[in-house]
Amino acid sequence: MPIVPMLLSRRLRASPYEQRVLEQGVQVFTLYNKMTLPIVFDDMESDREHLCEHVQIWDVAAERQVEIVGRDALQLVELISPRDVSRCDIGQCMYAPLCDENGGVINDPIVLRLAKDRFWLSIADSDVLLWVKGVAYGRGFDVDVFEPDVSPLGLQGPKADNLVADVVGEHTRDIKFFRFIETTIAGTDVLLARSGWSGQGGFEVYLQDSNKGLDLWDVFWEAGQKYNIRSGGPNFIERVESGLKSYGSDMTISSDPFEAGLEKFMNLDKPAEYMSRDALAKIAKTGPKKRLVNLIIGGDKLDSPRNTWKVLDASDDEVGIVTTQVYSPKFAANIAFAIVDADYSSVGTTLTVDADGEKRAVIVHDTQWQGSA
Amino acid sequence: MPIVPMLLSRRLRASPYEQRVLEQGVQVFTLYNKMTLPIVFDDMESDREHLCEHVQIWDVAAERQVEIVGRDALQLVELISPRDVSRCDIGQCMYAPLCDENGGVINDPIVLRLAKDRFWLSIADSDVLLWVKGVAYGRGFDVDVFEPDVSPLGLQGPKADNLVADVVGEHTRDIKFFRFIETTIAGTDVLLARSGWSGQGGFEVYLQDSNKGLDLWDVFWEAGQKYNIRSGGPNFIERVESGLKSYGSDMTISSDPFEAGLEKFMNLDKPAEYMSRDALAKIAKTGPKKRLVNLIIGGDKLDSPRNTWKVLDASDDEVGIVTTQVYSPKFAANIAFAIVDADYSSVGTTLTVDADGEKRAVIVHDTQWQGSA
Repeated sequence: MPIVPMLLSRRLRASPYEQRVLEQGVQVFTLYNKMTLPIVFDDMESDREHLCEHVQIWDVAAERQVEIVGRDALQLVELISPRDVSRCDIGQCMYAPLCDENGGVINDPIVLRLAKDRFWLSIADSDVLLWVKGVAYGRGFDVDVFEPDVSPLGLQGPKADNLVADVVGEHTRDIKFFRFIETTIAGTDVLLARSGWSGQGGFEVYLQDSNKGLDLWDVFWEAGQKYNIRSGGPNFIERVESGLKSYGSDMTISSDPFEAGLEKFMNLDKPAEYMSRDALAKIAKTGPKKRLVNLIIGGDKLDSPRNTWKVLDASDDEVGIVTTQVYSPKFAANIAFAIVDADYSSVGTTLTVDADGEKRAVIVHDTQWQGSA
Repeated sequence: MPIVPMLLSRRLRASPYEQRVLEQGVQVFTLYNKMTLPIVFDDMESDREHLCEHVQIWDVAAERQVEIVGRDALQLVELISPRDVSRCDIGQCMYAPLCDENGGVINDPIVLRLAKDRFWLSIADSDVLLWVKGVAYGRGFDVDVFEPDVSPLGLQGPKADNLVADVVGEHTRDIKFFRFIETTIAGTDVLLARSGWSGQGGFEVYLQDSNKGLDLWDVFWEAGQKYNIRSGGPNFIERVESGLKSYGSDMTISSDPFEAGLEKFMNLDKPAEYMSRDALAKIAKTGPKKRLVNLIIGGDKLDSPRNTWKVLDASDDEVGIVTTQVYSPKFAANIAFAIVDADYSSVGTTLTVDADGEKRAVIVHDTQWQGSA
């Protein structure tokens, strides 16, 4: 993919950790929710290696929060998701696709339940705040919907547990996956959740005062020296290896949640009203027309392109598009996600892709990349 | 402002003109509505000089369109804006702030009326699509709301009239400011509007088929050679000189339209229902607490910073923030926009700014920079 110079005007919001990220030698940024998100420090491959062995500190302030609080908060959160959010405990994180009245995926946030009538949606890259505000206004709900001053800091990698135990206490080892506690670190109140955008384990620390960002960073940075801590960010290679989809690439408002493989995060028969019920019931009956699948792409090690590669059948007719592709050192293969016609989505199906003019053979793989190494 | 490397992943959508922009030597991009927006080709100062003398071709596909069509389209557009959009003729462009139920500015698009019940909102940098979809759903309106395949191409500068007359015909000289016609250029249907994000005059061509982007570009590029055409983009210096505010910097959802100086684009007594009526009536009575003002900043030629500079009164108490600042060659001065407490907003008020630790004298100027050269 091309890397181009980008001007950091004030419209592209700064993270409270930005100063440290620049000092620690960020090489490449992306923009996410109109905020800078550092993604490469050394290079993608060595960042990935380090992440899988040690612990990294990630500026993921760009995971913005949408707070929904008030008498109708649960009713509103239920309305916008096909998942049964009433089952979410206080202190729990729940991955919940948001779907509009056509069944289109608006975002795939993690819902954090802070109180009976208070939620945060920890969002992917689309402006959920405005959508939820519009729905709340239109329905006349008794809620406040706003973006609070919350900036997550990621601690990812196999040594994250030791680091967090050193800094916060041994009790943090007992925090279960997708659960959070309220605590104080570096003199500032945070939520500490076992979650994060990698498959390597770790925590996300929800800073609630952007003036304390550098203090929070420094506490983990200093304590992390003995664990060979480095700055990092969501890693393009590792996330595909770990099967993590990215909203905006692998699914969009044109996707339905069946196509996107989100069946297990839906409760279509849940008692509460939700706006996508009719649309999703219809798709559930027939099955989705397309499926997001894993692909192994043959040929030489690929460079991830800017262009969208078409997936072709034996007659060279287009049957899908590649949404993400990267060379995986772990599997010594070119691995990819693609949206293809459902007829071509079975594991083992062989197809080709038009790789910027060069035909490459591809095979639909299982979602865990089993047996691909 | 720092310029940093950004990875062009597919999540950051490509414009249909991107290939030409890269070929023609773009130096710096920004991100706008999750799409690349090229902003510097030579350097900001010489780009500005060229723009003010010749004609430039701009990839402004990042000005996305939100289409609202159907029986309740006008009712919906009226609901989201304090401007009387019923007065917008078919073929007219109307600058119309969008305000939520608290009076907060959601965006400041140009509304294009394509038919009695069909509008495009040509938006600044916030996800109006999702907000309008939410409102339409919540109110049960009979409308379709979606992002059409539309990518504006800008032709800006004093020679734009001649260029467009050569390519499209002499009749285009009669298109009035903020009016558009439907026509065909390079074999593809477009809207041609006299508008654009500079003070130098020109047109915006609304391409409606992204497969035809390069053809459209090439027609103007070739015909423009005799006018010394160059690639360009919204110019940071020229826009401040011309008094053009930028949503996300100079106003946000925390701004009200009085603060932002948008009084003349509101019709608070319009007959139609609009959601900000009560909130804005309240502010109209007392006046806004803050005002967006023009400032001249003393001292040496400044570099526009990443940090937000505070505006201070004589006791060094904070009375506002600088939202945009740049050195203007035209006025041989540091010119800026700032949001200050209304008590300090009169032309001629003297204050100071904390310019990354250095105190600089500032004076509140009139909005036309009259007498500043």
